[in-house]
Amino acid sequence: PGESKAKAIKVAKSTQKLGEDDPRRVIHSLKVGLALTLVSLLYYSRPLYDGFGVAGMWAVITVIVMFEFTLGGTLSKGLNRGFATLLAGALGLGAQHLASLFGRKGQPVVLGILVFLLAAASTFTRFFPRIKARYDYGVVIFILTFSLVSVSGYRVEELLVLAHQRLSTVLIGGATCIVISMFICPVWAGEDLHKLIASNIEELAKYLEGFGGEYFQPVEDGRNVKVSNTDKSFLQGYKNVLNSKSIEESMANFARWEPRHGRFGFRHPWKQYLKVGALSRQCAYQIEALNGYINSDNQARLEFRCKIQEPCTKMSTECGKALKSLASAIKTMTVPSSPNVHVENSKTAVNDFKIALKTVSLEQDQDILAIIPAATVASILIEIVKCVERISESVHE
Amino acid sequence: PGESKAKAIKVAKSTQKLGEDDPRRVIHSLKVGLALTLVSLLYYSRPLYDGFGVAGMWAVITVIVMFEFTLGGTLSKGLNRGFATLLAGALGLGAQHLASLFGRKGQPVVLGILVFLLAAASTFTRFFPRIKARYDYGVVIFILTFSLVSVSGYRVEELLVLAHQRLSTVLIGGATCIVISMFICPVWAGEDLHKLIASNIEELAKYLEGFGGEYFQPVEDGRNVKVSNTDKSFLQGYKNVLNSKSIEESMANFARWEPRHGRFGFRHPWKQYLKVGALSRQCAYQIEALNGYINSDNQARLEFRCKIQEPCTKMSTECGKALKSLASAIKTMTVPSSPNVHVENSKTAVNDFKIALKTVSLEQDQDILAIIPAATVASILIEIVKCVERISESVHE
Repeated sequence: PGESKAKAIKVAKSTQKLGEDDPRRVIHSLKVGLALTLVSLLYYSRPLYDGFGVAGMWAVITVIVMFEFTLGGTLSKGLNRGFATLLAGALGLGAQHLASLFGRKGQPVVLGILVFLLAAASTFTRFFPRIKARYDYGVVIFILTFSLVSVSGYRVEELLVLAHQRLSTVLIGGATCIVISMFICPVWAGEDLHKLIASNIEELAKYLEGFGGEYFQPVEDGRNVKVSNTDKSFLQGYKNVLNSKSIEESMANFARWEPRHGRFGFRHPWKQYLKVGALSRQCAYQIEALNGYINSDNQARLEFRCKIQEPCTKMSTECGKALKSLASAIKTMTVPSSPNVHVENSKTAVNDFKIALKTVSLEQDQDILAIIPAATVASILIEIVKCVERISESVHE
Repeated sequence: PGESKAKAIKVAKSTQKLGEDDPRRVIHSLKVGLALTLVSLLYYSRPLYDGFGVAGMWAVITVIVMFEFTLGGTLSKGLNRGFATLLAGALGLGAQHLASLFGRKGQPVVLGILVFLLAAASTFTRFFPRIKARYDYGVVIFILTFSLVSVSGYRVEELLVLAHQRLSTVLIGGATCIVISMFICPVWAGEDLHKLIASNIEELAKYLEGFGGEYFQPVEDGRNVKVSNTDKSFLQGYKNVLNSKSIEESMANFARWEPRHGRFGFRHPWKQYLKVGALSRQCAYQIEALNGYINSDNQARLEFRCKIQEPCTKMSTECGKALKSLASAIKTMTVPSSPNVHVENSKTAVNDFKIALKTVSLEQDQDILAIIPAATVASILIEIVKCVERISESVHE
């Protein structure tokens, strides 16, 4: 019993954390509950086979499959569903009419062949990456509606009544979803993407600002003093950026469906966000390589490190500052101004570093080996400077 | 007209390429078509409201939403659907019974509250990453079935008949899917995962084997001779490894549902694959950092490069060979033997490199700056050696 109690507490805690991390999740759950209750009661209040009839359950189904976390997702599914249903319904009627020309015996054969061909062709289109990303749901609904309509066996007059019923219930379900998801605390995919890109850049900035202090720790008795009780979380933040590609792409997809809202116009350049995101990932890969050198045993010898400490720390810090002001420029959607200063500063630091290197004396015949790790760090930092410059350019666009 | 013709040809070509890249896609499309045709004709051959009745369309719906590319995906969806339907059906009946105790007026209110609570709670569980990954579809079906059953307004006896009809049609649809996807050219998620991990390691191997020759190109007149007409595709292959995380995870998820087949037992260590995959990605990040130095203008001065050329090329090539034999060991599922030799060789190369460095004379007061890029390359290669060692260890487990 003690064990299961501990487990229950653990689940409760993770639930609470999930809710606190993003309170919109709780609100979203309540919104789905509300939409479903409204639609269910509508369905319940009508006697069966009267008015909407059994088609009423389509309203319930529509709400459940269509209600997404973001408004863009809901709209994208709704539009996909709408177009696919209409197109497939029309084709299905056509197929039925065509099949009926072949007489009682030929009809099932012709229908079977048509369903087979259309289902196989549509399934194949789902392998196209672009269709998969944007219209996957629409294709599924298309196959579904086409097979249901074409093999329904109803006569056309009956079908029209049925289609009328089903369309109106689907519309009710869809409209409920869209209204609730648009007017009660809407979650905009575009805004989320915007924030995600900015916060990713911020994570990179945090790492770079902290890196100098971390790598060139004060040395005592030839060993690094471990400052263990400070918060090192800034060294981990960049790891999320490494795997952000798929989430950024799906958000950009949803964002394209959203109407204008707040500071986001209708033709907001969502593609540019993907570009900035890709560059941020590039930068994160470099940081990942850099990260291997923090706390490596193979610390460079003291004299050399002291020489390069200042320019390297400056490179890293200035890159961090440049990224930070880029992130805040993205957040406030103003034309960034100060990052240029920081980018220039970091370039100056690169030159300082080169000059500093010239003064390094290797006359004492000391090992080149010992300076290699520190040199590598410097070299990767130089690459990061280039990366930051590219990010800065693409944010300006 | 010429333009639209060109477009049509382009679409046709990309379709052909999609099919040729993986002929199983074509087969999968045909399988879906077959399953759908079978189920549709079953539905069509029965007069409406007799036998299976209108519930027959559930068989069509089941086929469409359940048929996945891999057998694991189909089974996972099928089991999710089965359990969720049964559980939600039982709970729905309970809810209806409970609500009926509150009299005619209280009933809709109680039902509304119950639907609201259950829908909100279930939607919230979908935010748990683990539930999202494995049981997302089950939760959707759960909400769907629960609302349909609880607000259906049928009396219990009627419901049992309905439930019987619906279950049997869903079973027919599900069984058709599973039989067709299992016995006609089955696509195993586990096998795909297995191949993906091996081919990812192979891509890394190709890059590393080629890297030495690419970076230390023959130099003429102080400039690199551009060997432009050779195939450089091996330099790009590793990029797919960078973003392989999500696809590996979903495949591992599906693989857990698959019965034993071929060389894969029931409790195959799929988690180990994810671990190897993560290490490969780690290695790919290092390669990404390395890749920046190929063709960089800032080539190191000749003498130094010559000194380190041999050990560096050896490091890179031996790592490549080690990875290649690891990949083939994974493919054949034998205990790898030779990679150890190559890992040892690459470690020896690291030592050779360190020794070579000691002989580098810097008496001529030459710039340290000039050797930094090459030193960085060497340093990253050393990190890659460590990475490869870890991959090798984890493959052995």
